[in-house]
Amino acid sequence: MVTVLKLGGSVITDKDQPETADSDALGTAAAAIGEFLGGDEQLVVVHGGGSFGHPHAAELGVSSTEGSRDAAGVVGIHRAMGELTDIVLDTLHDHSVDALPVTPLSVAHRSADGTVEFPSGQITTMLDEGFTPVVNGDVVAHAGKGATVLSGDTIVVSLARSLDADRVGLCSTVPGVLDDGGDVIPEIESFEAVADVLGGSESTDVTGGMAGKVRQLLALEVQASVFDLDSLATFLDTGSAGTVIRSG
Amino acid sequence: MVTVLKLGGSVITDKDQPETADSDALGTAAAAIGEFLGGDEQLVVVHGGGSFGHPHAAELGVSSTEGSRDAAGVVGIHRAMGELTDIVLDTLHDHSVDALPVTPLSVAHRSADGTVEFPSGQITTMLDEGFTPVVNGDVVAHAGKGATVLSGDTIVVSLARSLDADRVGLCSTVPGVLDDGGDVIPEIESFEAVADVLGGSESTDVTGGMAGKVRQLLALEVQASVFDLDSLATFLDTGSAGTVIRSG
Repeated sequence: MVTVLKLGGSVITDKDQPETADSDALGTAAAAIGEFLGGDEQLVVVHGGGSFGHPHAAELGVSSTEGSRDAAGVVGIHRAMGELTDIVLDTLHDHSVDALPVTPLSVAHRSADGTVEFPSGQITTMLDEGFTPVVNGDVVAHAGKGATVLSGDTIVVSLARSLDADRVGLCSTVPGVLDDGGDVIPEIESFEAVADVLGGSESTDVTGGMAGKVRQLLALEVQASVFDLDSLATFLDTGSAGTVIRSG
Repeated sequence: MVTVLKLGGSVITDKDQPETADSDALGTAAAAIGEFLGGDEQLVVVHGGGSFGHPHAAELGVSSTEGSRDAAGVVGIHRAMGELTDIVLDTLHDHSVDALPVTPLSVAHRSADGTVEFPSGQITTMLDEGFTPVVNGDVVAHAGKGATVLSGDTIVVSLARSLDADRVGLCSTVPGVLDDGGDVIPEIESFEAVADVLGGSESTDVTGGMAGKVRQLLALEVQASVFDLDSLATFLDTGSAGTVIRSG
């Protein structure tokens, strides 16, 4: 069974300190993953940038739609993300998870209309060989725009499709998608039903906000869950936690 | 016009010092590349491991045919190569070359019969956007074997084909393929013609020796050159230098 798990950048880094991992949170996540793996389970970990990638991206002025041709600047973002990946890999290795890095700049690109091409044969081979691929949010070449940001959320959606994943989980800083009263919405089957709470269907958030996440997850064939670190083990055990998102 | 240029690991590192770049040689190469680029020229740089990757690979006992499932060990080789790539990138940036890294572990894999799959859409997009992709020898997932070494020479051959390269150059520590008397053989059109000099047609060298290089280059549609650093500028200007290899 293939699970795609996103560890949110805000979950595993200290947002208030530049380029600082939250090693307690990361250790908790790695322990849950280590407990889960074994037997025939296959897991792809995707992580966001948090306090590593975002400041560099903001400084260079790049986003998923605004690009840059400043190679040294693009490499600066990429390296900052790589430093976080190194910490994630080391922590997973410490918990007996055979993690290997897959860095999107090396494999993915966007065509002129923004479509993401992310070949995944290397990931399938890693999974079949017992490895756990770790994929980071990154910058990628973008036809006509130089290089743009490829967010962890977009990677999750791309890989869930190409790997025909059985389960998708987004480990976030909140226990699920919250309603107006701050309670977790147990299940979402259409964007319209939650548009008021999430800021309206016109929201163009694509860089990590909840509206963008929900919209992208609803487009998947497979059910997805949004939950916090306390529920990661439950998600890995049962395949659902927090808010379950499925397009019915 | 697309050129694939390999910078040999022994050319750009100090073989006698672990993990030490030869910054003079690297600066000379980067200056020649910076002079060459501009206009419509597109260049892919591939570099070998030299004193960075090889000791780690030897320690773990991996080669292009012997694999490992020790994830931390595999990551150790990968990181050592990444350190050399970082130095190559910085040196190229210093010479106004808009270099971006492409690291094979993230994109390539080998199937059970050893065939290399190396998707190259991201490289084409980088080239079209004016970037110069820098690809390192690396470890990659290998069906049935864990992870094995993917050498710079093998990457050159794979990318020359998939990118339909116009020119292929191997910048080596020797001025070309040498005959028994130590003189450069100007042209090679078949392996049989040079088998005696190169150690016989039964040689299974695939990790950087000249016999393996010549055999792989002869299998290409496009002509290739083997030359030393002194002739790099000549190769970039004219498309041939040292020993020219073409399968007639």
